[in-house]
Amino acid sequence: MPNIGIVGSGIAGLHLGLYLRKHDIPVTIYSDKTAAQLAEGRLLNTVAHHRTTLDRETELGVDHWDLDEYGYFCNHHYIGGPSPMYFRGDFPTPSRALDYRVYLPRLAQDFEERGGTLAVRPVTPNNIVELSDQHDLMVISTGRAGLGAMFGRRADKSPYDAPQRNLAVGLYHGVTYNDPKGLSLSVSPGHGELLEIPMYSHEGHVTGLLFEAIPGASDLNELRDTRYDEDPAAFEKLVLAKLQAHFPGVFERVDPTRFSVTRPQDVLQGGVTPVVREDYTRLPNGKYAIALGDAHMTVDPMIGQGANTASFSAFTVGEAIVEDLGFDERLCLRIANRRAGHLMSAADWANFMVRREPAPHLLELFARMNEDDRVCRDVVDNFNFPERQWDIMSTPERTRAYLASFAA
Amino acid sequence: MPNIGIVGSGIAGLHLGLYLRKHDIPVTIYSDKTAAQLAEGRLLNTVAHHRTTLDRETELGVDHWDLDEYGYFCNHHYIGGPSPMYFRGDFPTPSRALDYRVYLPRLAQDFEERGGTLAVRPVTPNNIVELSDQHDLMVISTGRAGLGAMFGRRADKSPYDAPQRNLAVGLYHGVTYNDPKGLSLSVSPGHGELLEIPMYSHEGHVTGLLFEAIPGASDLNELRDTRYDEDPAAFEKLVLAKLQAHFPGVFERVDPTRFSVTRPQDVLQGGVTPVVREDYTRLPNGKYAIALGDAHMTVDPMIGQGANTASFSAFTVGEAIVEDLGFDERLCLRIANRRAGHLMSAADWANFMVRREPAPHLLELFARMNEDDRVCRDVVDNFNFPERQWDIMSTPERTRAYLASFAA
Repeated sequence: MPNIGIVGSGIAGLHLGLYLRKHDIPVTIYSDKTAAQLAEGRLLNTVAHHRTTLDRETELGVDHWDLDEYGYFCNHHYIGGPSPMYFRGDFPTPSRALDYRVYLPRLAQDFEERGGTLAVRPVTPNNIVELSDQHDLMVISTGRAGLGAMFGRRADKSPYDAPQRNLAVGLYHGVTYNDPKGLSLSVSPGHGELLEIPMYSHEGHVTGLLFEAIPGASDLNELRDTRYDEDPAAFEKLVLAKLQAHFPGVFERVDPTRFSVTRPQDVLQGGVTPVVREDYTRLPNGKYAIALGDAHMTVDPMIGQGANTASFSAFTVGEAIVEDLGFDERLCLRIANRRAGHLMSAADWANFMVRREPAPHLLELFARMNEDDRVCRDVVDNFNFPERQWDIMSTPERTRAYLASFAA
Repeated sequence: MPNIGIVGSGIAGLHLGLYLRKHDIPVTIYSDKTAAQLAEGRLLNTVAHHRTTLDRETELGVDHWDLDEYGYFCNHHYIGGPSPMYFRGDFPTPSRALDYRVYLPRLAQDFEERGGTLAVRPVTPNNIVELSDQHDLMVISTGRAGLGAMFGRRADKSPYDAPQRNLAVGLYHGVTYNDPKGLSLSVSPGHGELLEIPMYSHEGHVTGLLFEAIPGASDLNELRDTRYDEDPAAFEKLVLAKLQAHFPGVFERVDPTRFSVTRPQDVLQGGVTPVVREDYTRLPNGKYAIALGDAHMTVDPMIGQGANTASFSAFTVGEAIVEDLGFDERLCLRIANRRAGHLMSAADWANFMVRREPAPHLLELFARMNEDDRVCRDVVDNFNFPERQWDIMSTPERTRAYLASFAA
């Protein structure tokens, strides 16, 4: 029976750990936090799980949050500019957004209850080899503490050397959910985007507002540069002003008297430099280490692919471990091959969406989503299938061929 | 509707052409031979179709040869040496070996009857671009006329620069089939191998004998060097002598009074230099050409992977064409990704089997096939699944892990 070591207790590490326990494979997750500590601290992200990720959660038996209460049912789109557009894409089945300080501790508890070992200790590239002596294979699922740099940066898939959006994200009271309850994606041309996410957190049902400001002249950059911690009330006032000026479709559902950040630790300001790293590396003792989740790739959060692709990737790694006979380079190459289409499409698509000037064929696609509900639902469902999405968006010719297929 | 051009009318080109016609896609096969001419000429090969290839033929509607009459049911193995071994691996469903001068013309007829265009004309690298102007995508399925060299040789997958076996293959009368009817694979240690294939040809039910002589000191090299055409009777006598000396398990079923080559054109002598080439190339006019079948890879015929992997590859290309929206590099990379595991495993496995000294873990595996029918059937069925086969054989550790799984 193989024995697997996983570094990192985010969704990637926990989904893989739970997958392997489901197949009775001994597994240790190394984390710098206990399950209780995972529940504390600053907001980690504002992640939505799409339906294929929820299917994986059902398969893992960690579907603890009933969709009638915690789910949402569609994406609302507000495209600003001289001729504003609003269109809605309904999902075949719901999505769900949970604060990871609620989500991760519960999964860590599941993992331990099912015989997984959660070893709380710091891990750095310097002690990976020592840990790997106790395992057949190491999986590195966090990029922190220099662990990402164990894997070479893939220049062919990493077109940027800085964040393409300045981010300001927080959890808020005082925003009435859209009807039907859904995530909204709003575009303020030339300035950036807003994701409004119906989330469940320690404070109950709240709203995640993720502002994505285009670096440079965008009026939204103040939201990253005005530090919430220095003057919370001024920050909240600034958010309201930006909503009113750039995202009226969201602003109209805000009750200014109730509007506030939920707790001081529920705000994050910064940015993500997108990167794709090599799939695996050979350690000095001959063992292999697989890159997973943030250690393997990071994307701007605009299209919600980071956590969902990390979960997909965790299952790909888990399936290969369960099926295969060895823990050698052949296994690593098989994993790389199987996840390449999905993951590289997500990376390419995310990098395409954060261009400072949107591609004309993306605007063509938006216009058709606005006109034709079949197109809208299909594109929205493709958030589950980044390979299909990038098939549609990667060139103008492909977008046109795709749109023509609806006429036929 | 896309329009596909295929160069070459072997199994790869015809299976792809028929697949595309099944999906109503316009397709032209360029061949230097008419369907009638395909029925003539020298023996092309002695190919057996394994059950997954037969499943593809059923899907294509070209299953014209009833398995009760044309099929065979197992592999017989004779391993010579100081302690000879005989063991038999039964198939879950039959295989079938047809002379390609019977098989290909019938499929070419099917192709034309189903609306495919068979354009008889010579094609060289010089007129590919001109042809490609009339198509969305070109698929090159023959390596002849310099067409293989359109695609770069992959040094990482092409370990040899000369044939690893000298081949002498012919169709014969006078060999009684094994019972149950099956292909036999015999090993004469230090000299080479014999494949005995129950085939159907223009002369009816005959036997293909494919001698694989290890270059150098092997006593079997005479079979390649003694030219059949110069003295047919002497050649037949030599074959009998080599059967008696090296392959007694086959020789005992030969009736010397009836033993003869079926027709003068039914003998081939030579060798194959294994090579893997790049998956695709971009033509000067911006169109893409995909390598398929012999244009993509050639393997020694010992393990019968050439035609079967060509058929698999044709379906992979066909599926990608039917599903995808564009005829660009993304399509080519998708095809490369999807077929890599199967095809590269077949190439690596074939190159492993033609080593001059067999790997010790291969001999271990043979010994266990001899002892344990479950192992034998499984390895024999893996001729359909080269990726699984190479999972088992690629390292001694994997072979041992595989064999241990039967003890558990």
